[in-house]
Amino acid sequence: MPTFELGPNQYGKAETRLVRVERAAGGDRITDLNVSVALRGDLAASHLTGDNAAVLPTDTQKNTVYAFAREHGIAGAEGFAARLAEHFVATQPAIHEARVSIEEYPWSPVDAAHTFRRDGGEVRTAVVHHGPYGTQTVSGVKGLVLLKTTGSEFHGYVKDRYTTLPETRDRILATSVDATWRGLEGCPDPAAARAALVEAFADTYSYALQQTLFAMGSRVLQRCPEVVEVRLSLPNRHHFLVDLAPFGLDNPNEVYHAADRPYGLIEGVVRRDGVEIPEEVAWTF
Amino acid sequence: MPTFELGPNQYGKAETRLVRVERAAGGDRITDLNVSVALRGDLAASHLTGDNAAVLPTDTQKNTVYAFAREHGIAGAEGFAARLAEHFVATQPAIHEARVSIEEYPWSPVDAAHTFRRDGGEVRTAVVHHGPYGTQTVSGVKGLVLLKTTGSEFHGYVKDRYTTLPETRDRILATSVDATWRGLEGCPDPAAARAALVEAFADTYSYALQQTLFAMGSRVLQRCPEVVEVRLSLPNRHHFLVDLAPFGLDNPNEVYHAADRPYGLIEGVVRRDGVEIPEEVAWTF
Amino acid sequence: MPTFELGPNQYGKAETRLVRVERAAGGDRITDLNVSVALRGDLAASHLTGDNAAVLPTDTQKNTVYAFAREHGIAGAEGFAARLAEHFVATQPAIHEARVSIEEYPWSPVDAAHTFRRDGGEVRTAVVHHGPYGTQTVSGVKGLVLLKTTGSEFHGYVKDRYTTLPETRDRILATSVDATWRGLEGCPDPAAARAALVEAFADTYSYALQQTLFAMGSRVLQRCPEVVEVRLSLPNRHHFLVDLAPFGLDNPNEVYHAADRPYGLIEGVVRRDGVEIPEEVAWTF
Amino acid sequence: MPTFELGPNQYGKAETRLVRVERAAGGDRITDLNVSVALRGDLAASHLTGDNAAVLPTDTQKNTVYAFAREHGIAGAEGFAARLAEHFVATQPAIHEARVSIEEYPWSPVDAAHTFRRDGGEVRTAVVHHGPYGTQTVSGVKGLVLLKTTGSEFHGYVKDRYTTLPETRDRILATSVDATWRGLEGCPDPAAARAALVEAFADTYSYALQQTLFAMGSRVLQRCPEVVEVRLSLPNRHHFLVDLAPFGLDNPNEVYHAADRPYGLIEGVVRRDGVEIPEEVAWTF
Repeated sequence: MPTFELGPNQYGKAETRLVRVERAAGGDRITDLNVSVALRGDLAASHLTGDNAAVLPTDTQKNTVYAFAREHGIAGAEGFAARLAEHFVATQPAIHEARVSIEEYPWSPVDAAHTFRRDGGEVRTAVVHHGPYGTQTVSGVKGLVLLKTTGSEFHGYVKDRYTTLPETRDRILATSVDATWRGLEGCPDPAAARAALVEAFADTYSYALQQTLFAMGSRVLQRCPEVVEVRLSLPNRHHFLVDLAPFGLDNPNEVYHAADRPYGLIEGVVRRDGVEIPEEVAWTF
Repeated sequence: MPTFELGPNQYGKAETRLVRVERAAGGDRITDLNVSVALRGDLAASHLTGDNAAVLPTDTQKNTVYAFAREHGIAGAEGFAARLAEHFVATQPAIHEARVSIEEYPWSPVDAAHTFRRDGGEVRTAVVHHGPYGTQTVSGVKGLVLLKTTGSEFHGYVKDRYTTLPETRDRILATSVDATWRGLEGCPDPAAARAALVEAFADTYSYALQQTLFAMGSRVLQRCPEVVEVRLSLPNRHHFLVDLAPFGLDNPNEVYHAADRPYGLIEGVVRRDGVEIPEEVAWTF
Repeated sequence: MPTFELGPNQYGKAETRLVRVERAAGGDRITDLNVSVALRGDLAASHLTGDNAAVLPTDTQKNTVYAFAREHGIAGAEGFAARLAEHFVATQPAIHEARVSIEEYPWSPVDAAHTFRRDGGEVRTAVVHHGPYGTQTVSGVKGLVLLKTTGSEFHGYVKDRYTTLPETRDRILATSVDATWRGLEGCPDPAAARAALVEAFADTYSYALQQTLFAMGSRVLQRCPEVVEVRLSLPNRHHFLVDLAPFGLDNPNEVYHAADRPYGLIEGVVRRDGVEIPEEVAWTF
Repeated sequence: MPTFELGPNQYGKAETRLVRVERAAGGDRITDLNVSVALRGDLAASHLTGDNAAVLPTDTQKNTVYAFAREHGIAGAEGFAARLAEHFVATQPAIHEARVSIEEYPWSPVDAAHTFRRDGGEVRTAVVHHGPYGTQTVSGVKGLVLLKTTGSEFHGYVKDRYTTLPETRDRILATSVDATWRGLEGCPDPAAARAALVEAFADTYSYALQQTLFAMGSRVLQRCPEVVEVRLSLPNRHHFLVDLAPFGLDNPNEVYHAADRPYGLIEGVVRRDGVEIPEEVAWTF
């Protein structure tokens, strides 16, 4: 009879929705997080025989998220994630590694007191891995949608039997930025990294979205000395110039169709030269 | 043999995604719209026998949207919708009524030239009905998410056999505003109406979300003299105070669980007194 | 100082997710519902002054949904909705009308005992209005996606300045059916109505999606004698034949691009002749 | 001045929506795919200087997907993905690795001829990596929602300061299965693997969702001798028994609240013992 082996495995509570209000005379502050915990360790028994002696229930993990928000406050998504990850490894003998992933939803104050408006779309992210290798922090942003009305060309590419795309010297360039960045230690300033991404998108004259990607990653590395690696995933949100000639109209780069699918997807990593960067911990399924 | 009758019917092209760039020395402007057209008229033949002699294809409607953006520009969502609606009724003998619905996605300039960032979440809406009754314009906003950390109570309600909710003198009040408003003529200023909604949410001490709804509608009517009717749909996005007592912790209105479902849904109309308001045209399916 | 008037208004608990298990020796049965309640009545005080003396909290409505599932069981979505709607009107002096809307998610048994697989996509719907006019029941289905590989033409339509669409004698016809139907009394068999919709889509040679719509509505009326009105909303999910000529290939109706947006949207009502049909109650916002 | 280095990178066309109709006297067959291509190779110039001499445009990749469907047909998602991946590597000197990911949407025939109904929810997946290491094929299914009304316990777990969850000897177990599997060569039968997943979920008496996960993976390995590795991601879709005691009602495992968030997430790999399994190629961002 063949036997089967348990490979890498993890478990945890995903998407605990936590809102914390700091009440202050000069105006409240709110922190709005979606917290996901995943744990690894000596968890074979639970898989092989259903013996849960080593299992901290995911319900308890959720409770811990809420309790820590009260006990320790939330100085920032990265710090809160690190505290949680360290707690699970430190207090559970069977747990050797923890990953805490946080999405942070931004809000803007409406008045100087108690009212806020949620900024839609863009989300701040933080992922902390904690294990025998220490603590690895990955910060990021996703859903940051940018568009340039000009300053983008695309030509000089390979033509084969299946090519129909005409070259262009002026097109709209639009993308929804998903970016993450890592420092060797400490936690780089997310606002500075985000500003560098936007700035480089704006001021890079583009001959390819790949070129814009490299410029965006490089700008983060320039502006944030403690960052050593930037990862970018940039969908090319195609805006097609509509052919108005059948209606007797010209279209001098004015009227576009914003397409849904398919879309180009450009992804890449930009790294600081001459620095030894530890491999990124990735728990993928 | 029984016979069957064709009742109200409409057809059209939904969700044409149009982006228009106005190029100018002082900085480009972009308009990002999702345009849906629906037409009514003498369309029985198409339903009963498949005779399409009276049918303007939805593909042509889409072409018209793009062509009009070039021919006439887009002075505003309401005006663009009205022009399209009038065009279909004026030029198609079989078409007697048109509804053009537009969602407008806001973008913010990133620099003084060519780069923009999309503001997420909140969407501007405009619906124009044009027919024998003239032109009816309904403007609005949807997905405007607001939250108050205090200044909201809820008590004094009916208790029956199924009631377990405790009364509260201090809760978080949060909602995602879907609002529409109508003027008797012309097109009220959407920015003013939106500002009135936010302001009234912020400065109304609330004993019920219904009360906040009425205050928000009334504020729009106060600020926008040409508006005669405001419709509001306000989901009560519950934020539940987490019980931390099992962990030996108090929770002085600080740590909340943001719930997904179910949610309260409060909807209502607020109207200007002493004004005869034509019934809203509604094509519902 | 101008005064403002409260117009139509309603409130209630939306999207209470209820799963009921009927345990039986011969195999369990599960009912999976998403229940939304909306109530109307003498609710002005809550809006004008925040006096909630007439307000049954939405939390209590949620509790009632769960309690009724235990007290009365769920003989069907329509019956369960009617029982809830009648309860709120009968027991709350201030409430004069109730609407209960239910989405039902279908599951298929995997074995003869306890295991089920959820059938994705298609959802059964039931909406009950109860008020001074009695009880009105609207049953339906949504998300029923159908496609014909042939047997669909489209030609003979209006051509104007903006028309570029070529006529076709053979195209794919695909749609996602949203349908509702009403009987004068009692509750028509939803499975029979759904089967009639599918059958008419399949066996109607189509010259227009409008014609298919009318055939689908008529078929329900033929098969379900107690149904008097059918409403249909049919997006035309365009499948465009890809032009392979640039690659030296023909495309004999074989390779298609399934487009997302825009899409045609065809909507209509089909009614039984010679029957007086009470107007449909609609609470729209 | 610091310099920056381009790390791993890839680009391609995502989500090309392809529908193919095979026309046959005995009834048509349709294949409905969402095809995503990603390529790696000597692409530094495009990033560093915007020189696109090595870049095959994503538009051409899309064209190739459509053309190959006509030229070669689609014998199966895995085979079609492999053919595309090999083509890009074989014909583009600068491209050394390709990944083609396919989602396949199932349809059921409605009649014996031309009409189909889309089966919602569940999706078949296939990912092919082709490069210097040869060809790696990963098949899978996602969105397969399963539920057991009984036969699931959870107890014996760790209790700490933050634990409030009561132990249970009888609960609903529900999940949405995302699974992938790999063979050493050739392409295992997806239907057999899927059936094994469902069967093991049904007949495993569960003391932990981890145990069910291991049983599901093992069953695939038992039934499909050519499979060497199974990966599973199982959200625990919590169904909470509603407390009806405040209403004077018992609740003998009958009425449940189906919760949205948070949810447990159990993930793991099950492997065939004593077989050397090449590491899975993963391009993550």
